[in-house]
Amino acid sequence: MYSWATDLFPINRSLTGAGVRQTLAYLANLLPGLVIHDVPSGMKAFDWTIPDEWTIRDAYIANESGERVVDFQQHNLHVVGYSEPVDLWMDREELEQHLHSLPDQPDAIPYITSYYARRWGFCLTHNQRLSLPPARYHVVVDSDLKPGVLNYAELILPGEMDDEVLLSTYICHPSMANNELSGPVVTTALVQWLQSLEKRRYTYRIVFVPETIGSIVYLSRNIDQLKRQVIAGFNITCIGDDRCYSYLPSRTGSTLSDQAALHVLKHTDSDFKHYSWLDRGSDERQYCAPGVDLPIATIMRSKYGEYPEYHTSLDNFDVVTLSGLEGGFIALRRAIEIIEQNIHLKTTVLCEPQLGKRGLYPNLSTKESGEQVRAMMNLISYCDGSRTLLEIANLIEGPFWDLIIVVEKLVSYGLLEKIYIRTSLKAS
Amino acid sequence: MYSWATDLFPINRSLTGAGVRQTLAYLANLLPGLVIHDVPSGMKAFDWTIPDEWTIRDAYIANESGERVVDFQQHNLHVVGYSEPVDLWMDREELEQHLHSLPDQPDAIPYITSYYARRWGFCLTHNQRLSLPPARYHVVVDSDLKPGVLNYAELILPGEMDDEVLLSTYICHPSMANNELSGPVVTTALVQWLQSLEKRRYTYRIVFVPETIGSIVYLSRNIDQLKRQVIAGFNITCIGDDRCYSYLPSRTGSTLSDQAALHVLKHTDSDFKHYSWLDRGSDERQYCAPGVDLPIATIMRSKYGEYPEYHTSLDNFDVVTLSGLEGGFIALRRAIEIIEQNIHLKTTVLCEPQLGKRGLYPNLSTKESGEQVRAMMNLISYCDGSRTLLEIANLIEGPFWDLIIVVEKLVSYGLLEKIYIRTSLKAS
Amino acid sequence: MYSWATDLFPINRSLTGAGVRQTLAYLANLLPGLVIHDVPSGMKAFDWTIPDEWTIRDAYIANESGERVVDFQQHNLHVVGYSEPVDLWMDREELEQHLHSLPDQPDAIPYITSYYARRWGFCLTHNQRLSLPPARYHVVVDSDLKPGVLNYAELILPGEMDDEVLLSTYICHPSMANNELSGPVVTTALVQWLQSLEKRRYTYRIVFVPETIGSIVYLSRNIDQLKRQVIAGFNITCIGDDRCYSYLPSRTGSTLSDQAALHVLKHTDSDFKHYSWLDRGSDERQYCAPGVDLPIATIMRSKYGEYPEYHTSLDNFDVVTLSGLEGGFIALRRAIEIIEQNIHLKTTVLCEPQLGKRGLYPNLSTKESGEQVRAMMNLISYCDGSRTLLEIANLIEGPFWDLIIVVEKLVSYGLLEKIYIRTSLKAS
Repeated sequence: MYSWATDLFPINRSLTGAGVRQTLAYLANLLPGLVIHDVPSGMKAFDWTIPDEWTIRDAYIANESGERVVDFQQHNLHVVGYSEPVDLWMDREELEQHLHSLPDQPDAIPYITSYYARRWGFCLTHNQRLSLPPARYHVVVDSDLKPGVLNYAELILPGEMDDEVLLSTYICHPSMANNELSGPVVTTALVQWLQSLEKRRYTYRIVFVPETIGSIVYLSRNIDQLKRQVIAGFNITCIGDDRCYSYLPSRTGSTLSDQAALHVLKHTDSDFKHYSWLDRGSDERQYCAPGVDLPIATIMRSKYGEYPEYHTSLDNFDVVTLSGLEGGFIALRRAIEIIEQNIHLKTTVLCEPQLGKRGLYPNLSTKESGEQVRAMMNLISYCDGSRTLLEIANLIEGPFWDLIIVVEKLVSYGLLEKIYIRTSLKAS
Repeated sequence: MYSWATDLFPINRSLTGAGVRQTLAYLANLLPGLVIHDVPSGMKAFDWTIPDEWTIRDAYIANESGERVVDFQQHNLHVVGYSEPVDLWMDREELEQHLHSLPDQPDAIPYITSYYARRWGFCLTHNQRLSLPPARYHVVVDSDLKPGVLNYAELILPGEMDDEVLLSTYICHPSMANNELSGPVVTTALVQWLQSLEKRRYTYRIVFVPETIGSIVYLSRNIDQLKRQVIAGFNITCIGDDRCYSYLPSRTGSTLSDQAALHVLKHTDSDFKHYSWLDRGSDERQYCAPGVDLPIATIMRSKYGEYPEYHTSLDNFDVVTLSGLEGGFIALRRAIEIIEQNIHLKTTVLCEPQLGKRGLYPNLSTKESGEQVRAMMNLISYCDGSRTLLEIANLIEGPFWDLIIVVEKLVSYGLLEKIYIRTSLKAS
Repeated sequence: MYSWATDLFPINRSLTGAGVRQTLAYLANLLPGLVIHDVPSGMKAFDWTIPDEWTIRDAYIANESGERVVDFQQHNLHVVGYSEPVDLWMDREELEQHLHSLPDQPDAIPYITSYYARRWGFCLTHNQRLSLPPARYHVVVDSDLKPGVLNYAELILPGEMDDEVLLSTYICHPSMANNELSGPVVTTALVQWLQSLEKRRYTYRIVFVPETIGSIVYLSRNIDQLKRQVIAGFNITCIGDDRCYSYLPSRTGSTLSDQAALHVLKHTDSDFKHYSWLDRGSDERQYCAPGVDLPIATIMRSKYGEYPEYHTSLDNFDVVTLSGLEGGFIALRRAIEIIEQNIHLKTTVLCEPQLGKRGLYPNLSTKESGEQVRAMMNLISYCDGSRTLLEIANLIEGPFWDLIIVVEKLVSYGLLEKIYIRTSLKAS
């Protein structure tokens, strides 16, 4: 995963344009079957309209000596996203209105965009800004803003059921590592893992979209099917640093995705951060919107907006680490495993089974012997057919991934029966 | 309001009699349309019977020199309410059994009544009592207890719907300011405000009754209509001092009145006192009685029984202040506004609306810009048609009166739709 | 109760055999109508099979001088329960593998059984064990393990209804006082009290069984009737010491038995220990098993497994005391009284009744007089026909046994009406 992230890091992504296509092509190479879609500018999607495509070839501020003092070639955050073309000489004072920097983080280039209002601008470190003397400057943005397409990619992995798990991530941010490259690379690793499984209970729908407009477009084209089939899913973002784990609920907070996320995080890091719907800020805003109501929750490492490097040039590989990505991958994989394996369970005998005659119980009853089979008996004691394994795991406060092993053993002894009940499609 | 209270303060009110009529006449002058009813003594009302009317002309204890040492003309709390007539000479010791004072509050005259058992007595400060020497005293109560009427007043303000909001207050206490003159004067101000509104969604039913027997009589005469039509309401009492805010729930604690009261008080004074149904003591005892079950809650300043001056001559205008009355008025007005305006809300577009194209969103996306529209987006995110604005306000922890402004703006842009769903008549 | 316990203490009980029959015969003498059942070895009961009957005549370890150094005649815990017959000479080292002691409690003989795997062994104090020198020992267990019967006893006390309260206790432990003689003796006292009642609303089914296999056998023979008729019940164990009170819930924790137990313990000892279903360990494991789901909760003094003397020779009459047994008896009796008397209540008048005219209210209204009738009025205020007296007692935080007196008074005045609603048979 780490090398995918470093490969993709330099590409200048935005809502639209060559950077997005280059990124999707790289991912298609890793994910056979990935289909890249394009949607023309001007097309409507619910309350929104696909914007013009933005092409950026070069952008810089040069001084009177022709020296580039701010240069898009150095860092693609230097130009405000969706800047319109400009080629002007101006003095320091006029230039000032088009500069963006962060006085509190004087060595960080901020990430600024202006998708829906035409303007141009440059982002730079505050120290750089202070070092620009009064003088004439040559300002060039060599860009186009004209009708083109918006791209997104989609992959369907069929399962035993038509019911679907939706994984969504986004590919519209330029060179930043946690928000966002961690999202597409962890998603790619999850898809490769899903592809490697012998069988999948659910069908998986994975989408790589530009944030907000992309998920809105995707929803506008697929909403009936999504509402009919999606039983769980995750928006995958900010999943690459090693500082903490975070949970952001769906709108209701009670979907299977929420239950799985909470269980995984509780047993992964008891200090995980529990955000509220009011803290939302990514595509769950669309997937869980009123009337859309898909059961989408979010598992993150450090949440967008909550770590100091967020939306600056400092969100790099000092923030994102291999162990950070791996921890995020494992948490999401476990959440998906819970969704896959969350059957109802029912005992096959009335009263407790006699474990002893099957070699599952110590024959000699001593003061301590009871402890050894307690976990197994606790599990059995809740298998009345009305509870899922996830509910039982929460009742007996053990991790799902340990209990599933005990379940398989008891099923093999004929003591438990798995019951498959279709997960409710109840709204997010 | 303050001058109404000071005007009404000297009148000697009781369950029945001239003081009640004088008080209601004063209020009728302020409230065009107020209808004064009379109910004859001896009439049955559920388990109760209207008592005889009490007329008190004079009452005093005089010493052998003819000097009045305790005198009803000085303070109408000096005579026990409903004292039967007496004209006797007796010594200090015999007199003692008819005296009431408060050793712990030696400068307060207590307020004592004996409505349903015939007796007579005098209330005085404990210091006054200690200063009465052994001697012969002339005890006179010039009163009548004979069949007459019990009075109450009623006003109906029609609204767009037949569904009603009930406001009830009481007018049976002599010269005390918080319990009770604050009740009728704040109610009068609320009625004048309701009369000034261009339109009212609900019909308002306002009653001024003697406490307990009055609300029981009123219920016995109107119960079918009240149970059919009252969707919310408040018992208005102890609403004039400036020390704190208090909430006393309906019997179930979950009616719209309770929800509105809790929301107002939470956003008015986070330290408001939250009493329980077990602390009740006024007409909610009747309005929320089993089988009556009207949705009546209580918003107070300092609760009856909980402030040191309660039911004594010290409950005067040192306790009740203009700002105390105004604070109480505003809290109740806000609660009524919530009940009036508590619609269900539904977005008109799927996914988030594009606020930018409507000038509702900053065009330049910066690290901070998100905060500015967060409240608006939070509101929209909950408008799925299943929640009322009050529920949404509680979810996003903002005051209803701020949110309603945002709602009107979004409705005017066509982004939200109001849905009027009839408030459940579910019992208190 | 205390003398019954001391009478029964020396008998050598086990799952089966003469000790059980001797114990049941003693109880039958106290409880006219007690029926003793026998079930043949080899019979199936759900997942289990009735084991062979164990007869133990003598058991000892003797040294080369013929001196008995460990002797079943001295204490019946000395032999491992269900030990197979043996008559061998062996050296100290070989003997070692058949000895059980507790290094942490060097003066306690542990209680060990091996019901379902054939072996033999001796239990002794750790000090005794350390004092056995290397030498040849003569080991004798004079026992039989052959087809016979398993015994249990049952008593039905008919009530006005066919709905039943089940009381279950066990009689399979040798000389230990809290676990288990406290169980059968407190149960016996409860049955004598139930027999003494003029009338019983419910039918009572009392069973004395060997633990686990006994309750499974009993369930396998009676499950349809039990599921149809049992509305509440208790497993009675560890109810004789004076250290604390304990509660162990049914599987759901919400049955009438649970509610009654929690109410009694809250008002008996506010520091009572509240265990969870995960702490279970006695016959509630069978009665509340998935698919069985009887509403059985457990009230204990010191819980099995939680006191140091548990399952050792130290669980004697230093642990169990008369006051301990009496406290346990009263707690269970109160829980049964709640189940018997837990009617729904409804006022007969609308609004508050006028207590004064019935002499139930002080005539003279003073600042304090309200307090006196508050409990009565609180009770009445909740009697809307939808709540049981137990629910009301919890709402007003008073003990059921005080409130029932007030209820009877108000019923006698015609102010309250009792409504009998059949207790739900909803699962444990």
